[in-house]
Amino acid sequence: MSALGRLRVSFCRTAWFHRPKQPTWTSIARLALNTSRYNNNSARGGVVLTSERYPSLQRGDYTAVTDKHIAFFEGLLPGRVISDVRDLDGYNTDWLKTCRGASQLLLRPKTTEEVSQILRYCNENQLAVVPQGGNTGLVGGSVPVFDEIIISTQLMNKVFSVDEISGTLVCQSGCILGNLETLINEHDLTMPLDLGAKGSCHIGGNLATNAGGIRLLRFGSLHGNVLGLEAVLPNGDVLDSLTTLRKDNTGYDVKQMFIGSEGTLGIITAVSILCAQKPSSVNVAFVGCEDFPTVLKVLQRSKENLAEILSAFEFIDRQCMALTERNLNLTNPITDNKFYALIETSGSNPNHDEEKLNHFLETLMEDGIVRDGTLATETSKVQAIWGLRERLAEALMHDGYCYKYDVSLPLSHFYELVEVMRERLGDKAVSVVGYGHVGDCNLHFNATTREFDEEVMGLIEPFIYDWVAEHKGSISAEHGLGFKKKDFIYHSKSKAAVQLMKDMKRLLDPNGILNPYKTLPTD
Amino acid sequence: MSALGRLRVSFCRTAWFHRPKQPTWTSIARLALNTSRYNNNSARGGVVLTSERYPSLQRGDYTAVTDKHIAFFEGLLPGRVISDVRDLDGYNTDWLKTCRGASQLLLRPKTTEEVSQILRYCNENQLAVVPQGGNTGLVGGSVPVFDEIIISTQLMNKVFSVDEISGTLVCQSGCILGNLETLINEHDLTMPLDLGAKGSCHIGGNLATNAGGIRLLRFGSLHGNVLGLEAVLPNGDVLDSLTTLRKDNTGYDVKQMFIGSEGTLGIITAVSILCAQKPSSVNVAFVGCEDFPTVLKVLQRSKENLAEILSAFEFIDRQCMALTERNLNLTNPITDNKFYALIETSGSNPNHDEEKLNHFLETLMEDGIVRDGTLATETSKVQAIWGLRERLAEALMHDGYCYKYDVSLPLSHFYELVEVMRERLGDKAVSVVGYGHVGDCNLHFNATTREFDEEVMGLIEPFIYDWVAEHKGSISAEHGLGFKKKDFIYHSKSKAAVQLMKDMKRLLDPNGILNPYKTLPTD
Repeated sequence: MSALGRLRVSFCRTAWFHRPKQPTWTSIARLALNTSRYNNNSARGGVVLTSERYPSLQRGDYTAVTDKHIAFFEGLLPGRVISDVRDLDGYNTDWLKTCRGASQLLLRPKTTEEVSQILRYCNENQLAVVPQGGNTGLVGGSVPVFDEIIISTQLMNKVFSVDEISGTLVCQSGCILGNLETLINEHDLTMPLDLGAKGSCHIGGNLATNAGGIRLLRFGSLHGNVLGLEAVLPNGDVLDSLTTLRKDNTGYDVKQMFIGSEGTLGIITAVSILCAQKPSSVNVAFVGCEDFPTVLKVLQRSKENLAEILSAFEFIDRQCMALTERNLNLTNPITDNKFYALIETSGSNPNHDEEKLNHFLETLMEDGIVRDGTLATETSKVQAIWGLRERLAEALMHDGYCYKYDVSLPLSHFYELVEVMRERLGDKAVSVVGYGHVGDCNLHFNATTREFDEEVMGLIEPFIYDWVAEHKGSISAEHGLGFKKKDFIYHSKSKAAVQLMKDMKRLLDPNGILNPYKTLPTD
Repeated sequence: MSALGRLRVSFCRTAWFHRPKQPTWTSIARLALNTSRYNNNSARGGVVLTSERYPSLQRGDYTAVTDKHIAFFEGLLPGRVISDVRDLDGYNTDWLKTCRGASQLLLRPKTTEEVSQILRYCNENQLAVVPQGGNTGLVGGSVPVFDEIIISTQLMNKVFSVDEISGTLVCQSGCILGNLETLINEHDLTMPLDLGAKGSCHIGGNLATNAGGIRLLRFGSLHGNVLGLEAVLPNGDVLDSLTTLRKDNTGYDVKQMFIGSEGTLGIITAVSILCAQKPSSVNVAFVGCEDFPTVLKVLQRSKENLAEILSAFEFIDRQCMALTERNLNLTNPITDNKFYALIETSGSNPNHDEEKLNHFLETLMEDGIVRDGTLATETSKVQAIWGLRERLAEALMHDGYCYKYDVSLPLSHFYELVEVMRERLGDKAVSVVGYGHVGDCNLHFNATTREFDEEVMGLIEPFIYDWVAEHKGSISAEHGLGFKKKDFIYHSKSKAAVQLMKDMKRLLDPNGILNPYKTLPTD
């Protein structure tokens, strides 16, 4: 009997599990906005205003929107100015339903020139604005804090070009990530990033937040994959760096400053991105591990054995996996493990990939590292396993209120944070769980309560940030700082670095009209 | 008889060719400095001073170095201050021997704190400085233009840590790239960049110039692979962003601004870099092509068939290859082709890699795309083929004076530039050749004359920059702008982008002491 044969569920292609229709991120968001059971800390279905939840917040010295301003915008964007507050609720509220602004004006430009005119006017009239893509951010960065004008990229969704030989895609910033993936798949290409929100997040928002996601392990960050971008500066000037060249060392690479600046330095209007060859073979192994050090052993082995075909390495703890069963009625194909590792391979030769994967799994078995697992090679089954991982955020929301943290930690202290927090919160929390991109040292730590609980919040913050800083991690791995974490920036960045950021903000946006109250700490 | 068997030289592991001992870049540089036949435009062995070759150049309003300054530095860096001009010749002259400064002071700090004190003092005393790594730059960026103080990173060569699991290397900026490669190979890791100058270039200089090289095709640019850096700002402040985390979205990614800024915004003192798993199998195929469109066909096929194991794709034209035979006495294993493509694969499974490569070469043969080639799987033979490619710069130097250009061009116009220039220069030039990283759209165009020829220079510039801009290329793909190309920046960058660069320079270096006359255009 081979080592593979000894597996309880076995690494076979037949054993499978129930998988309900998976909603897109958009439909989840709609669900969250319309259904009272998802309301975090709300009164009769409404999310508490950010200005009320944080009463010490001061509105900046910006002009309030008047009919005169609205008339100007209606002239500029006929039929694309929304000022009925009932239509603005979804745009004012973040996906997690923890932040809510009171904007009374939404603008929907279609072109760079329109964005330029909007910003020039706002800058001259000291009107604050917040740029918004798919509004899937998790730190309150994409919604107003007070009454900032919302500039949505929803209608900026043109694809300009796809070049199969060089692998470059050029498009407007409002294109939805998932739509781009579908489009370029037809050209045998694949996007260098993939994340749970792909059904509704915009590529411009991905750049603005330097989105990471599950493919970063393979393709690296957007700082390497973005070849060019076009951005409108707060004064209305257009910065055209929309090149498709892989190499262009002519002066400072200014486009880099906009990647990860969370819409505070300029509004990204178009992007040029390097896409990878679409793999002809994608496999997923899902294995159970008896403790976290075993997860790390599997990670190390996967780097050695799968090397160039390894495309993702994720982990989920037992408590988190239980939520998918309890809250979403999904079935876990390999139950009763303390930890689960999801290992994806992508390659150009199905036989080679399977041989590598089989060898990897066989040696894991033979060496007694792993006892339980399943292997998916068919697309539908690969997607179903990914569904388990990608619906974790949704499963957590069903508990009630979710305290969400996204940190980087050295692997030597990685899961320790969850254990420390579990003990600290005790039975005050419904769930205390960890999952995430362990291959990138990126932990998603989450705790839930039925409703927002001030005491629980006080037990988590600032303790968690202190703990992460003490263990040389980052308080925000991929979500950014946005509104909610900006004042903890010094936990991860030096005074000199933050000073340089402030200087750059002042240089580009001297009036501070662009996405105020975000990213940089309160002075 | 198989398709492979029909090859004239055949893709076999026995046919091989003469390979003389390959000098390192350092020894080539020494050769170039000491031997009169390499002297470009020189009088009795000395390179013409930059200030004499460009008589309209104005020295900036900087303080001249006095004994008082020297005394200060001798106190700070005992035994590491060089002020004897005879010892400064190599540091004042660039590798191509086309630029020569007249610095009278070389400082060799060992620590970040020393660099900080040097810059603070220079900033307060309005003393101009030029940071220098291995001095292998090709655009005059690493040598003084007038009498700037040279700050060398030669003695900053400590390695702080190598982490095998996360693949991170942290070291001082003066470490030599080739030494780092040797060191981390022992930890089963490999550097994400490799270039001809690896025997003497410093990792800090690589970051400062955003060096590309032959592995960019596989691992992407330094903007993606550099995890952190430490830099000293012109006022002496230390910017510590030396994290080893793959994901850290806490504020603007300020380290990006120093990558590719050519030492004009700060001096990089330490780096943290993400290394890849060392491949257990490296193969090289070297094939002949009858025209340039065939090279592109081979490139496209290699992307499809070799996909995740493709690690380099270079091309050399016949005229350039002839120089390695004529000037270096190397033997080309596959003669009489108009173009040559060098295709490297790196992977984790030798059998799989060979199978992919054989299939790739067989179909190239069967489809009549390629008739001639050789395949190397043994390390020594792989290195010998690479030697042909890496010694091209040296082969060109033997002609006399070399006019060197490094451009990015869309593949549709890629080789056209060489043909246009060949016709334009006619018999005024000894050689007019093209080679380079065609997989990254990066062409190295070179022309040579026996001695520097004003007329030939006038035929090349600004024509070549206009042509590249007209065809939507970049006038500097990976070499940077340095001193020689700074005034052509508008051929590749918009006014708004250059304005932003100038603003950033002013923000960080208001006194303009750091590497003046470089990168940004003359006002």
